[in-house]
Amino acid sequence: MTTMRAILFDLDGVLYQDEMAIAGAKEVVAWVRELGIPHMFLTNTTSRPRTAIVAKLKSMGIEVPMELVLTPPVAAVRWLRESGLHNAALFVTEASASEFAVSASPDEETSVEAVVVGDLGERWDFSTMNRAFRLLMADNAPQLVALGLTRYWLADGGLRLDVGPFIKALEYASGREAIVMGKPAPHYFQAALSTLGVAPEQTLMIGDDIRGDIEGAQRLGIKTLLVRTGKFRPADLHLGIQPDGVLDSVVDLPRWWSLHSGTTLSPT
Amino acid sequence: MTTMRAILFDLDGVLYQDEMAIAGAKEVVAWVRELGIPHMFLTNTTSRPRTAIVAKLKSMGIEVPMELVLTPPVAAVRWLRESGLHNAALFVTEASASEFAVSASPDEETSVEAVVVGDLGERWDFSTMNRAFRLLMADNAPQLVALGLTRYWLADGGLRLDVGPFIKALEYASGREAIVMGKPAPHYFQAALSTLGVAPEQTLMIGDDIRGDIEGAQRLGIKTLLVRTGKFRPADLHLGIQPDGVLDSVVDLPRWWSLHSGTTLSPT
Repeated sequence: MTTMRAILFDLDGVLYQDEMAIAGAKEVVAWVRELGIPHMFLTNTTSRPRTAIVAKLKSMGIEVPMELVLTPPVAAVRWLRESGLHNAALFVTEASASEFAVSASPDEETSVEAVVVGDLGERWDFSTMNRAFRLLMADNAPQLVALGLTRYWLADGGLRLDVGPFIKALEYASGREAIVMGKPAPHYFQAALSTLGVAPEQTLMIGDDIRGDIEGAQRLGIKTLLVRTGKFRPADLHLGIQPDGVLDSVVDLPRWWSLHSGTTLSPT
Repeated sequence: MTTMRAILFDLDGVLYQDEMAIAGAKEVVAWVRELGIPHMFLTNTTSRPRTAIVAKLKSMGIEVPMELVLTPPVAAVRWLRESGLHNAALFVTEASASEFAVSASPDEETSVEAVVVGDLGERWDFSTMNRAFRLLMADNAPQLVALGLTRYWLADGGLRLDVGPFIKALEYASGREAIVMGKPAPHYFQAALSTLGVAPEQTLMIGDDIRGDIEGAQRLGIKTLLVRTGKFRPADLHLGIQPDGVLDSVVDLPRWWSLHSGTTLSPT
């Protein structure tokens, strides 16, 4: 067995809820930095760029450098670079597009190597979907890259379709499978591990989403902590998914870490 | 073993190709009528009502009464009636809507019992998809009814998304499964068998689509004949799907029928 030595934080529901910091979140982030524990912040948000996320955290007194924030667009950019794909058609919001250096406008239909699809909301229409579809059907078989697979979200006016349904439409039409950037896709957690240079069993994921955060991370062999804040509901503990620990909130993390992170060292 | 006594005809690629009748198709339809063989015509077309299909056949000299033509909207109407669902929200073309007596306008969001979705083409946009999605998420859990699951079709300007991808988007978003009206869905063949009052093993399906016509019908135990017209390609014979016979065209049907439909009678 190995010691835990790195921490992955979910943001929404763990460090803040709507526009309010979770009590003690600021101190926990200061603690992880002071102890020099390698860490990253993983969010599925694609509606704003990392600069906006960092600014939001800062307004709550939580200091986080932008390089430690992983979003689906950032993971996509990294994956495209590592895969040697330079010409990507982007079906993403302006906020997401700002993370992409590699890019082509979506209407350039020649030799596109990847089709990156995010939550376009009201901007989706038939011709936009059909353009993405036709690009995917090109002879060079571009890779479909999904900025998450979220089904829907609760907006002021009611439920709204998110990126997932549009990915499923394009997958079915083209007969191809998307690579998914976002929790719970294993590839997404792996991107964080690679950045930190740590192994799954050395890493702890702390989140409020029993499926997206906990189950997703466990599939890769990452240790997990569920918090009872954010979207947590008691029923989440009866889904057959067993986190390594359950905390009332992130504020209990330092104590849990001191008790559990190194205990497996003793037999060595 | 039982005798074959009923015939289901695919239309496009079997009786006609684009705007041209297949040579001899007219005579075969006259033959099946003269012999009094129970029969129906099954098409996945939703872009025109049965009246237009019958008129097209008539212009080719092929006389077919409207009641013998099964289209996805007609099967949907029948299924809604048999299921006692009277208030359906229709996301279908005008041509399809004309087949529906039961109906509600898609923007009526109260107590809808079914959400019927066809190929809307250019009329799809985010708010239309989101409206269908929200109807499906209502507390009374309306049934999603798909007018086929076709992935795409080849239009003049290139490939175009058909109804299937939009169904997949709505299924994924709502976590629910559509009932599919159209080949190769078993329910669709069953609707024809019920109308004719025949059993699957007494029935022959003749078509040009190895998956939609042949494989689909075989799953229900229907006998099958593949024709080498329409979308047939020689490679279709190497997909591990074995029709009961392969004909150069529908014109060979009467001879095949006289040789095979009753042979299993002799031992009786």
